[in-house]
Amino acid sequence: MDYILDHIGIAVRSIDDALPFYLTVLNGIVEDRYTSDAPGVEVHVAVVRTNDKVIELLSPTNKNSPMARFIKQRGKGVHHIAYRVDDLDEAIQEARKKGVRFLEDTLRTNTRGRKLIYVNPASTDGTLIELCSYPSQK
Amino acid sequence: MDYILDHIGIAVRSIDDALPFYLTVLNGIVEDRYTSDAPGVEVHVAVVRTNDKVIELLSPTNKNSPMARFIKQRGKGVHHIAYRVDDLDEAIQEARKKGVRFLEDTLRTNTRGRKLIYVNPASTDGTLIELCSYPSQK
Repeated sequence: MDYILDHIGIAVRSIDDALPFYLTVLNGIVEDRYTSDAPGVEVHVAVVRTNDKVIELLSPTNKNSPMARFIKQRGKGVHHIAYRVDDLDEAIQEARKKGVRFLEDTLRTNTRGRKLIYVNPASTDGTLIELCSYPSQK
Repeated sequence: MDYILDHIGIAVRSIDDALPFYLTVLNGIVEDRYTSDAPGVEVHVAVVRTNDKVIELLSPTNKNSPMARFIKQRGKGVHHIAYRVDDLDEAIQEARKKGVRFLEDTLRTNTRGRKLIYVNPASTDGTLIELCSYPSQK
Protein backbone atom coordinates (compact mmCIF):
# COMPACT_ATOMS: atom_id res chain seq x y z
CA MET A 1 0.00 0.00 0.00
CA ASP A 2 1.33 3.44 -0.95
CA TYR A 3 1.04 6.23 1.59
CA ILE A 4 1.23 9.54 -0.26
CA LEU A 5 1.43 12.87 1.54
CA ASP A 6 -1.95 14.47 0.80
CA HIS A 7 -2.00 17.65 2.85
CA ILE A 8 -0.86 19.40 6.01
CA GLY A 9 -3.59 20.77 8.28
CA ILE A 10 -2.75 24.04 10.04
CA ALA A 11 -4.73 25.38 13.01
CA VAL A 12 -5.36 29.12 12.78
CA ARG A 13 -7.66 31.52 14.59
CA SER A 14 -8.63 33.32 11.39
CA ILE A 15 -8.26 32.03 7.85
CA ASP A 16 -8.20 35.58 6.54
CA ASP A 17 -5.23 36.40 8.77
CA ALA A 18 -3.35 33.26 7.74
CA LEU A 19 -3.98 33.27 3.98
CA PRO A 20 -1.80 36.20 2.84
CA PHE A 21 1.53 34.47 3.57
CA TYR A 22 0.60 31.39 1.54
CA LEU A 23 -0.84 33.41 -1.34
CA THR A 24 1.60 36.29 -1.66
CA VAL A 25 4.86 34.70 -0.47
CA LEU A 26 4.53 31.01 -1.40
CA ASN A 27 2.45 31.84 -4.51
CA GLY A 28 -0.33 29.49 -3.41
CA ILE A 29 -3.85 29.44 -4.80
CA VAL A 30 -7.08 28.83 -2.90
CA GLU A 31 -8.64 25.70 -4.39
CA ASP A 32 -11.63 25.43 -2.07
CA ARG A 33 -13.26 26.99 0.98
CA TYR A 34 -15.98 25.36 3.06
CA THR A 35 -17.28 24.92 6.58
CA SER A 36 -17.73 21.60 8.38
CA ASP A 37 -20.45 22.00 11.01
CA ALA A 38 -20.49 18.34 12.05
CA PRO A 39 -20.26 17.94 15.84
CA GLY A 40 -16.65 17.34 16.85
CA VAL A 41 -15.36 18.89 13.61
CA GLU A 42 -16.67 22.50 13.58
CA VAL A 43 -14.07 24.14 11.36
CA HIS A 44 -13.82 26.59 8.53
CA VAL A 45 -11.44 25.22 5.89
CA ALA A 46 -9.36 26.88 3.17
CA VAL A 47 -7.54 24.51 0.83
CA VAL A 48 -4.41 26.21 -0.49
CA ARG A 49 -2.25 24.62 -3.17
CA THR A 50 1.46 25.42 -3.60
CA ASN A 51 2.78 23.38 -6.51
CA ASP A 52 2.32 19.66 -5.90
CA LYS A 53 0.88 19.76 -2.39
CA VAL A 54 -1.92 21.28 -0.41
CA ILE A 55 -2.19 23.07 2.93
CA GLU A 56 -5.51 23.09 4.78
CA LEU A 57 -5.99 26.16 6.93
CA LEU A 58 -8.43 25.25 9.70
CA SER A 59 -10.14 27.76 11.98
CA PRO A 60 -12.67 26.93 14.70
CA THR A 61 -16.32 27.81 14.04
CA ASN A 62 -16.91 28.29 17.77
CA LYS A 63 -14.96 28.37 21.01
CA ASN A 64 -15.83 24.75 21.86
CA SER A 65 -14.60 23.39 18.54
CA PRO A 66 -11.78 20.81 18.87
CA MET A 67 -9.65 23.22 16.82
CA ALA A 68 -10.25 25.96 19.41
CA ARG A 69 -9.15 23.57 22.15
CA PHE A 70 -6.06 22.59 20.14
CA ILE A 71 -5.06 26.24 19.71
CA LYS A 72 -5.65 26.93 23.41
CA GLN A 73 -3.45 23.98 24.40
CA ARG A 74 -0.67 24.14 21.79
CA GLY A 75 -1.02 27.47 20.03
CA LYS A 76 -1.53 28.04 16.31
CA GLY A 77 0.48 25.89 13.91
CA VAL A 78 0.46 22.45 12.32
CA HIS A 79 -2.48 20.37 13.52
CA HIS A 80 -2.06 17.18 11.46
CA ILE A 81 -0.34 15.52 8.50
CA ALA A 82 -2.56 13.54 6.11
CA TYR A 83 -1.49 10.55 3.99
CA ARG A 84 -3.66 9.37 1.11
CA VAL A 85 -4.14 5.68 0.30
CA ASP A 86 -6.01 3.81 -2.42
CA ASP A 87 -8.05 1.71 -0.02
CA LEU A 88 -8.67 3.26 3.37
CA ASP A 89 -10.49 0.26 4.84
CA GLU A 90 -7.57 -1.99 3.99
CA ALA A 91 -5.06 0.55 5.33
CA ILE A 92 -6.94 0.72 8.65
CA GLN A 93 -7.09 -3.07 8.86
CA GLU A 94 -3.36 -3.41 8.09
CA ALA A 95 -2.46 -0.74 10.63
CA ARG A 96 -4.62 -2.34 13.33
CA LYS A 97 -2.79 -5.63 12.76
CA LYS A 98 0.45 -3.76 13.50
CA GLY A 99 -0.99 -2.50 16.80
CA VAL A 100 -1.93 1.00 15.60
CA ARG A 101 -4.87 2.61 17.40
CA PHE A 102 -7.20 5.22 15.90
CA LEU A 103 -9.03 8.13 17.51
CA GLU A 104 -12.35 6.95 16.07
CA ASP A 105 -13.79 3.45 15.76
CA THR A 106 -14.61 3.89 12.08
CA LEU A 107 -13.65 6.20 9.25
CA ARG A 108 -15.86 9.21 8.50
CA THR A 109 -16.60 11.10 5.30
CA ASN A 110 -16.05 14.85 5.29
CA THR A 111 -18.08 17.63 3.62
CA ARG A 112 -16.16 17.15 0.38
CA GLY A 113 -16.48 13.36 0.19
CA ARG A 114 -13.02 12.54 1.50
CA LYS A 115 -12.94 9.47 3.73
CA LEU A 116 -10.66 9.95 6.70
CA ILE A 117 -9.59 8.71 10.10
CA TYR A 118 -7.08 10.01 12.64
CA VAL A 119 -4.39 7.78 14.07
CA ASN A 120 -4.18 8.00 17.86
CA PRO A 121 -1.02 10.07 18.53
CA ALA A 122 -0.08 7.43 21.11
CA SER A 123 0.65 5.19 18.09
CA THR A 124 2.76 7.78 16.22
CA ASP A 125 4.97 9.05 19.07
CA GLY A 126 2.89 12.22 19.41
CA THR A 127 2.11 13.55 15.92
CA LEU A 128 -1.52 13.69 14.76
CA ILE A 129 -1.68 11.79 11.47
CA GLU A 130 -4.74 11.42 9.23
CA LEU A 131 -5.20 8.58 6.74
CA CYS A 132 -7.60 9.39 3.91
CA SER A 133 -8.93 8.39 0.51
CA TYR A 134 -10.96 10.22 -2.13
CA PRO A 135 -14.31 9.37 -3.75
CA SER A 136 -12.61 8.14 -6.93
CA GLN A 137 -10.76 5.62 -4.79
CA LYS A 138 -12.28 2.74 -2.83
CA MET B 1 9.60 31.42 -8.08
CA ASP B 2 8.29 27.93 -7.32
CA TYR B 3 7.93 26.93 -3.68
CA ILE B 4 7.92 23.14 -3.48
CA LEU B 5 7.16 21.27 -0.28
CA ASP B 6 10.52 19.73 0.65
CA HIS B 7 9.96 18.13 4.04
CA ILE B 8 8.12 18.27 7.34
CA GLY B 9 10.25 18.47 10.49
CA ILE B 10 8.88 16.61 13.50
CA ALA B 11 10.14 17.16 17.05
CA VAL B 12 10.59 13.91 18.98
CA ARG B 13 12.32 12.99 22.20
CA SER B 14 13.82 9.81 20.73
CA ILE B 15 14.25 9.00 17.05
CA ASP B 16 14.24 5.30 17.84
CA ASP B 17 10.83 5.62 19.52
CA ALA B 18 9.38 7.63 16.62
CA LEU B 19 10.76 5.65 13.67
CA PRO B 20 8.68 2.44 13.84
CA PHE B 21 5.37 4.09 12.86
CA TYR B 22 6.89 5.68 9.74
CA LEU B 23 8.76 2.52 8.74
CA THR B 24 6.26 -0.22 9.50
CA VAL B 25 2.92 1.56 8.98
CA LEU B 26 3.65 4.21 6.33
CA ASN B 27 6.26 1.96 4.63
CA GLY B 28 8.89 4.71 4.85
CA ILE B 29 12.62 4.23 4.38
CA VAL B 30 15.45 5.94 6.26
CA GLU B 31 17.46 7.88 3.69
CA ASP B 32 19.91 9.51 6.06
CA ARG B 33 20.82 9.93 9.72
CA TYR B 34 23.14 12.56 11.12
CA THR B 35 23.73 14.88 14.05
CA SER B 36 24.01 18.65 13.86
CA ASP B 37 26.11 19.88 16.78
CA ALA B 38 26.16 23.53 15.70
CA PRO B 39 25.18 25.86 18.57
CA GLY B 40 21.49 26.69 18.34
CA VAL B 41 20.79 23.59 16.24
CA GLU B 42 21.88 20.60 18.40
CA VAL B 43 19.69 17.88 16.93
CA HIS B 44 19.86 14.28 15.84
CA VAL B 45 18.15 13.90 12.45
CA ALA B 46 16.56 10.94 10.68
CA VAL B 47 15.40 11.59 7.13
CA VAL B 48 12.50 9.26 6.32
CA ARG B 49 11.00 9.05 2.83
CA THR B 50 7.43 7.94 2.16
CA ASN B 51 6.85 8.02 -1.58
CA ASP B 52 7.38 11.53 -2.98
CA LYS B 53 8.08 13.39 0.26
CA VAL B 54 10.33 13.33 3.27
CA ILE B 55 9.82 13.61 7.03
CA GLU B 56 12.69 14.76 9.22
CA LEU B 57 12.56 13.34 12.72
CA LEU B 58 14.44 15.74 15.01
CA SER B 59 15.51 14.92 18.56
CA PRO B 60 17.47 17.21 20.88
CA THR B 61 21.12 16.33 21.54
CA ASN B 62 20.91 17.96 24.99
CA LYS B 63 18.34 19.50 27.31
CA ASN B 64 19.24 23.05 26.26
CA SER B 65 18.78 22.36 22.53
CA PRO B 66 16.12 24.54 20.87
CA MET B 67 14.30 21.29 20.03
CA ALA B 68 14.21 20.39 23.74
CA ARG B 69 12.71 23.81 24.50
CA PHE B 70 10.15 23.38 21.70
CA ILE B 71 9.04 20.01 23.08
CA LYS B 72 8.83 21.44 26.61
CA GLN B 73 6.65 24.32 25.41
CA ARG B 74 4.46 22.62 22.81
CA GLY B 75 4.97 18.91 23.19
CA LYS B 76 6.18 16.48 20.54
CA GLY B 77 4.82 16.91 17.02
CA VAL B 78 5.38 18.95 13.88
CA HIS B 79 8.14 21.53 14.35
CA HIS B 80 8.33 23.10 10.89
CA ILE B 81 7.34 22.83 7.22
CA ALA B 82 10.11 23.38 4.64
CA TYR B 83 9.67 24.71 1.10
CA ARG B 84 12.45 24.31 -1.46
CA VAL B 85 13.28 27.02 -3.99
CA ASP B 86 15.75 27.26 -6.85
CA ASP B 87 17.39 30.44 -5.59
CA LEU B 88 17.21 30.97 -1.85
CA ASP B 89 18.89 34.39 -1.88
CA GLU B 90 16.32 35.67 -4.35
CA ALA B 91 13.45 34.09 -2.39
CA ILE B 92 14.62 35.81 0.80
CA GLN B 93 14.94 39.14 -1.01
CA GLU B 94 11.47 38.81 -2.57
CA ALA B 95 9.90 37.83 0.75
CA ARG B 96 11.58 40.76 2.58
CA LYS B 97 10.10 43.14 -0.01
CA LYS B 98 6.67 41.77 0.94
CA GLY B 99 7.34 42.53 4.61
CA VAL B 100 8.30 39.00 5.66
CA ARG B 101 10.73 38.75 8.58
CA PHE B 102 13.16 35.89 9.22
CA LEU B 103 14.45 34.38 12.45
CA GLU B 104 18.05 34.82 11.30
CA ASP B 105 19.73 37.71 9.47
CA THR B 106 21.23 35.41 6.85
CA LEU B 107 20.76 31.89 5.55
CA ARG B 108 22.89 29.10 6.98
CA THR B 109 24.15 25.83 5.52
CA ASN B 110 23.39 22.61 7.39
CA THR B 111 25.53 19.51 7.89
CA ARG B 112 24.33 18.07 4.57
CA GLY B 113 24.92 21.20 2.47
CA ARG B 114 21.32 22.39 2.43
CA LYS B 115 20.97 26.16 2.62
CA LEU B 116 18.11 27.20 4.85
CA ILE B 117 16.47 30.00 6.78
CA TYR B 118 13.43 30.09 9.06
CA VAL B 119 10.63 32.58 8.49
CA ASN B 120 9.63 34.40 11.68
CA PRO B 121 6.29 32.82 12.71
CA ALA B 122 5.00 36.37 13.23
CA SER B 123 5.03 36.62 9.42
CA THR B 124 3.19 33.31 8.83
CA ASP B 125 0.40 33.60 11.40
CA GLY B 126 2.16 31.23 13.78
CA THR B 127 3.56 28.31 11.78
CA LEU B 128 7.33 27.79 11.63
CA ILE B 129 8.29 27.66 7.95
CA GLU B 130 11.73 26.96 6.52
CA LEU B 131 12.84 28.05 3.07
CA CYS B 132 15.71 26.02 1.64
CA SER B 133 17.75 25.12 -1.41
CA TYR B 134 20.15 22.30 -2.20
CA PRO B 135 23.81 22.35 -3.30
CA SER B 136 22.88 21.61 -6.92
CA GLN B 137 20.79 24.77 -6.87
CA LYS B 138 22.06 28.35 -6.50
